[in-house]
Amino acid sequence: MQEREILNNRSSGERPIILTTDFGLTDSYVGVMKGVILGINPRAAIVDLTHQIQPQNILQASFTLATSYRFFPNESIHAVVVDPGVGTTRQAILLITPHGRFLAPDNGVLSGVLGDYVDVAPSKPGSVSVPDGLTAISLTNPTYWLEPVSQTFHGRDVFAPVAAHLSTGVSDTDLGDPIGDIVWLPAPQPVREGNTISGEIIVVDHFGNLVSNIPASMISGDKTSGKIAMVEIGGQNILGLSRTFHDAAQPEAPSGSNKLVALMGSNGYLEVAYPDGSAAALLDAGVGEPVRVRIDS
Amino acid sequence: MQEREILNNRSSGERPIILTTDFGLTDSYVGVMKGVILGINPRAAIVDLTHQIQPQNILQASFTLATSYRFFPNESIHAVVVDPGVGTTRQAILLITPHGRFLAPDNGVLSGVLGDYVDVAPSKPGSVSVPDGLTAISLTNPTYWLEPVSQTFHGRDVFAPVAAHLSTGVSDTDLGDPIGDIVWLPAPQPVREGNTISGEIIVVDHFGNLVSNIPASMISGDKTSGKIAMVEIGGQNILGLSRTFHDAAQPEAPSGSNKLVALMGSNGYLEVAYPDGSAAALLDAGVGEPVRVRIDS
Amino acid sequence: MQEREILNNRSSGERPIILTTDFGLTDSYVGVMKGVILGINPRAAIVDLTHQIQPQNILQASFTLATSYRFFPNESIHAVVVDPGVGTTRQAILLITPHGRFLAPDNGVLSGVLGDYVDVAPSKPGSVSVPDGLTAISLTNPTYWLEPVSQTFHGRDVFAPVAAHLSTGVSDTDLGDPIGDIVWLPAPQPVREGNTISGEIIVVDHFGNLVSNIPASMISGDKTSGKIAMVEIGGQNILGLSRTFHDAAQPEAPSGSNKLVALMGSNGYLEVAYPDGSAAALLDAGVGEPVRVRIDS
Repeated sequence: MQEREILNNRSSGERPIILTTDFGLTDSYVGVMKGVILGINPRAAIVDLTHQIQPQNILQASFTLATSYRFFPNESIHAVVVDPGVGTTRQAILLITPHGRFLAPDNGVLSGVLGDYVDVAPSKPGSVSVPDGLTAISLTNPTYWLEPVSQTFHGRDVFAPVAAHLSTGVSDTDLGDPIGDIVWLPAPQPVREGNTISGEIIVVDHFGNLVSNIPASMISGDKTSGKIAMVEIGGQNILGLSRTFHDAAQPEAPSGSNKLVALMGSNGYLEVAYPDGSAAALLDAGVGEPVRVRIDS
Repeated sequence: MQEREILNNRSSGERPIILTTDFGLTDSYVGVMKGVILGINPRAAIVDLTHQIQPQNILQASFTLATSYRFFPNESIHAVVVDPGVGTTRQAILLITPHGRFLAPDNGVLSGVLGDYVDVAPSKPGSVSVPDGLTAISLTNPTYWLEPVSQTFHGRDVFAPVAAHLSTGVSDTDLGDPIGDIVWLPAPQPVREGNTISGEIIVVDHFGNLVSNIPASMISGDKTSGKIAMVEIGGQNILGLSRTFHDAAQPEAPSGSNKLVALMGSNGYLEVAYPDGSAAALLDAGVGEPVRVRIDS
Repeated sequence: MQEREILNNRSSGERPIILTTDFGLTDSYVGVMKGVILGINPRAAIVDLTHQIQPQNILQASFTLATSYRFFPNESIHAVVVDPGVGTTRQAILLITPHGRFLAPDNGVLSGVLGDYVDVAPSKPGSVSVPDGLTAISLTNPTYWLEPVSQTFHGRDVFAPVAAHLSTGVSDTDLGDPIGDIVWLPAPQPVREGNTISGEIIVVDHFGNLVSNIPASMISGDKTSGKIAMVEIGGQNILGLSRTFHDAAQPEAPSGSNKLVALMGSNGYLEVAYPDGSAAALLDAGVGEPVRVRIDS
């Protein structure tokens, strides 16, 4: 997916802790997690990826993480707490990859990351074998938890303290036992039929840009021409692919096209933007909105 | 209240600075406080507890702090800036406890913390003597302020620089003179009559969970059975106490109960949640909503 | 503008990185910038000034930065990413001042900072010569960028990695070539005619305080009396200037004045506040609202 590596990424021995949650920023939940971390590793470098995942939206968290993690140092410890099943029998796991460690409930939230490593991604929810080169561990060793563990806030009582201990150099294998399977939750996949790719919007960003699930690879891999003829969304047709948000309107743009632009977004997926405002507002479109790409033959 | 201690909390000599304000995240107020801190202690570890306290809601800040501070290292320096009286004659104080230092306007915002140490909490607003084992100091030494001190932003001009100097090891007693009394602002207290505990909702969290002022101790201390028979809120009756947000609906749940659950929340207080969404929205309930617990006799 | 210096601002060799963007806090954009920074400088101190600049509002970012930067250490590296022209021909620049380094698109967003150094500020958009004592550099050396550079997210691909490299001590002149002019975008300026100063509201803060573009210098410099007789806004007249948000209502306050207060705000500009709530809501006023000050003669 993201092929690039961080420029001059030095292996420093530092292990920053990256937090991704649906806790929001109004309550003290995130602050308290950081308090627990500092109690264990007072010099931990803690970064927020986002705390504004929609409540319990596992798929959104999975996509956000998948499009972001390669921009963090490989030594990073991600704590991903979108956890509707907290306190139930769902496992808490550590997934070790060449590009970071991931602590999370085993509910599918790591599917986006896993998708970069599995050979064949199942199209239905279930589980997948841990891919070659990765290791998964079930967090079963209470030595590294905050006691007593509540039934409703494992972000504070399990994930934060385990992340902090990992950041001080505690060994992965001290945290619990290796497991062979991880829960898999597939994201909606785009489909190609003939010259048409059918996908959908999966994120509406802060600017109102509509981010689809159609990856650059699906379009640049087109053997016939590599040229997008038309992006269709919300009853609008957008001619051609722009390079920047402010490319001049294409001469061929039909009147009434409202200067919508389609472009390959910074996270590697096709997106639709309205440079003078919000494409989401202009089209009254949100997550799930169908988008179609017709490729010139 | 919170009896637990932080696992492996090492005394490292590090003194993180924890910020709690009603400044929000849109303006530059919080960023500027951090700038002032870094100008004095470039390596300060700064953590946000929250900046989304409702404007000038001293009681909400007091409760948020009280349910959070024990999860931070004991060396923490809390700067609590909810300060409607900024620039008036209200004092600025430092409260020293075994579980952290607290810088704040002397307007009652530390009452929740103080409540963990006072023997008898007054039921009316006023003042309390500084409890045994704690020390309070009036911040009167301008050496540690940012000059000239504005009349409207002591977060920047007093609390941030004093916190930063404390984090570098400046002595508490250099900051001003000890005082004997602190302003006290009581939170609404639950009342028990017979088998009924009457309380109210004091926080609605990001998930729409309704957090009450009824502490676990008030229910677990019940000598007769320890069993909650019924939680009443917004015209709904919730049978029994759940362990997690997703406990199966109790077989005895009356139809129309909407799968609301009552449980002991992670901060030690009874809360009401709607696992499939927001209890606040479902019940159209907010802060101040009465909640009653009837205990089986 | 801000004349004060940071108390005990020690030159430590530390170069904190300060982020100001319009990216919001919902998406992962800000987190990803921090990931890139940590990949280059794992011990970087990163502070958010704000990420809630209105989308593409260059003037708001310019004002926010101008009223904040002097509270940060002089060694600070500001990355200011409000960048509607990302991917177009606009330059990316580094501006070096005695009070901090500023990385930004060359679109006028540094005009507020520049305004502290230019002798005569142009009243029309265009460009200004780099003032004496400052240096500007065009960021043209791709060695310090994240490759491949996207066309839509230079925050991640240019500004974050350049800031990180600067924080590790990379030389300014390695980043590109000096330039002689910077884009200038003037903010609306207040006008004095006789005893009347006419300005406008340029920021509505989190509390609903209405911050104007009338600086303290324009009023304190008044040779006749230094006394404000009347502030007019939204059809209301406010008698006299208060010292704090909670000054007692002036005895002369006309009935119906709603206890609005006018005062010199903490950032050095005249503001209008409603101590019991939001002045913006009370007056139904926002950015652009005219405000007039009549000075006693």
